[in-house]
Amino acid sequence: VNVHDLPTPSLLVDLAAFEHNVATMAEAHPGPALRPHVKAFKSTALARRLVEAGHRGFCCATVREMEGMAAAGLGDDLLLANEVVGPAATRLGTLARSGTARVTAAVDSAATMEAAADSGVTEVLVDVCVGLPRCGCPPEEAASLADLARSRGLEVRGVMGYEGHLMREQPAEDKAAKVEQAMALLVEAHEAVGGDVVSAGGTGTYDCNRWATEIQAGSYVLMDTEYVPHAPAFRNALILWTTVISVYQPAGWAVLDGGLKCLGMDHGNPTVEGGQCFVVSDEHITYFPDGDRPAVGDRVRVVPAHVDPTVALHERMYVVDGEAVVDTWEVDLRNW
Amino acid sequence: VNVHDLPTPSLLVDLAAFEHNVATMAEAHPGPALRPHVKAFKSTALARRLVEAGHRGFCCATVREMEGMAAAGLGDDLLLANEVVGPAATRLGTLARSGTARVTAAVDSAATMEAAADSGVTEVLVDVCVGLPRCGCPPEEAASLADLARSRGLEVRGVMGYEGHLMREQPAEDKAAKVEQAMALLVEAHEAVGGDVVSAGGTGTYDCNRWATEIQAGSYVLMDTEYVPHAPAFRNALILWTTVISVYQPAGWAVLDGGLKCLGMDHGNPTVEGGQCFVVSDEHITYFPDGDRPAVGDRVRVVPAHVDPTVALHERMYVVDGEAVVDTWEVDLRNW
Repeated sequence: VNVHDLPTPSLLVDLAAFEHNVATMAEAHPGPALRPHVKAFKSTALARRLVEAGHRGFCCATVREMEGMAAAGLGDDLLLANEVVGPAATRLGTLARSGTARVTAAVDSAATMEAAADSGVTEVLVDVCVGLPRCGCPPEEAASLADLARSRGLEVRGVMGYEGHLMREQPAEDKAAKVEQAMALLVEAHEAVGGDVVSAGGTGTYDCNRWATEIQAGSYVLMDTEYVPHAPAFRNALILWTTVISVYQPAGWAVLDGGLKCLGMDHGNPTVEGGQCFVVSDEHITYFPDGDRPAVGDRVRVVPAHVDPTVALHERMYVVDGEAVVDTWEVDLRNW
Repeated sequence: VNVHDLPTPSLLVDLAAFEHNVATMAEAHPGPALRPHVKAFKSTALARRLVEAGHRGFCCATVREMEGMAAAGLGDDLLLANEVVGPAATRLGTLARSGTARVTAAVDSAATMEAAADSGVTEVLVDVCVGLPRCGCPPEEAASLADLARSRGLEVRGVMGYEGHLMREQPAEDKAAKVEQAMALLVEAHEAVGGDVVSAGGTGTYDCNRWATEIQAGSYVLMDTEYVPHAPAFRNALILWTTVISVYQPAGWAVLDGGLKCLGMDHGNPTVEGGQCFVVSDEHITYFPDGDRPAVGDRVRVVPAHVDPTVALHERMYVVDGEAVVDTWEVDLRNW
């Protein structure tokens, strides 16, 4: 199939850029030194390529991602790098008890730890806040949480702490210094907690986080326009493939058949190749072409500003090598 | 089922608010005077409620919405209020030739008109630009497009023109005056084109557009925080139902288990009931509670800022009457 015969809007993965990204990261963090984050691509077909690149442990943000990875035979070592209680914890415990995957859960409170133990999860990481205003316990409480977990019979594998607030820090020296400060909190918590694992980091800090035993990066695989300045070793591999459906000759704008419902918009407008993005609405991008006006029916490549929520809006990604569509990866891990 | 037993994150529809919205619009634009826009809710189950309220014609933004409505037996009069060429036009023609729905397509160029005719679509509206920078031909070209369509054997039912750039105009008098100017362009095009239909309007102009024979409103059904100031007769009926998964006691923030991947973010942050939204990330909302700190496991209602892309991220909506879950509506028309 030629890319020009695909329906639009659809997601393309540029195979050369993807392979470059995977190889670059695997060289920096080979095998178990990287725990790729499934939330960034939500596809077991893509995850298999990361296994081929040497990574066998993954982290997930949702129970559905955990279940789907296990069902696909990719459950060697799955970390739910997120907190769950209630029905979600019950589902996670069911997965752990099924024996189809090694399941580790992040816990940052007595409540999430008890939920894990009650559900049948047997292994946990203590999630420590290292500055990002999100999940994670205060560092000084990590030891008592670990004690509580062990008193409930849970295996404490170590700690995790995500320095997400530093991914976009500039310049690089400042970033490195701040990552060191954040990781000092995690290392201290790890000394108090014990276990083998210090799980941290992301695409924006993969090259300066020297304290994590495993880096939790996901965005590097497909990248987006917003992340490139902060991790310039990686290339945009994800493209929204669209068709020109209207050209307004008096003013010179053209309209593409993809909009808000196929693009994560929290990082702002996407980049329209060969033009300037003007307005993005539910099903349309209106843009001004740089050169000659396109014709209705022309195809246009659009590069998303934020990969994770973009992928979550699509059923599948088409892998392209030049103009040839060489594979189709289902986004089988989306939804909850 | 009690709402507290539902998994999170999930979408709730407040039945009382929904019924209020449907009744309010049906009183203003009864029966065929309203052509509800399926793109705002993407659910045939919800569409059935609008049929019960007297509306039998619908408009859609995607071919999949058209196909799904037809397959559900809701194809009395389906307008694709959008331009298509290539594979999408072929699919639309296949639907038209199947006889399972009355299919009308919007066309705004020779290319889209030819694509409709070639595919087997038999009825069109000429889409006229009335000021919104998106689809629609220049008003002065409407007549020649209609002639071209008729020369290809197409039935021209009339015109459509969406004054989407005026939905949020303030104050109301200015909005009404600008809508009159925009609709003057459409009325003039209609006189040149002929046919019975003048399709226009939306939730923000339903009460001041007196020129359309049918109003294309969709957002009014579920509403969102961004639209309420512009159409205050309608109530927020859509809620993202979340669970508190973490509370950081030193700083006082709490974390909910829904984020960017279950919320349309192009209109900004959602409204967290009982607190102030602080940061929305892929799978989390961090917020500051107004009063007492919540406990891990508490449920929290979040009102989206933009309904359409929010619904497109979910598999289903749970209809709630107080705490009772009384129905489940599949979002069966999402994707492409």
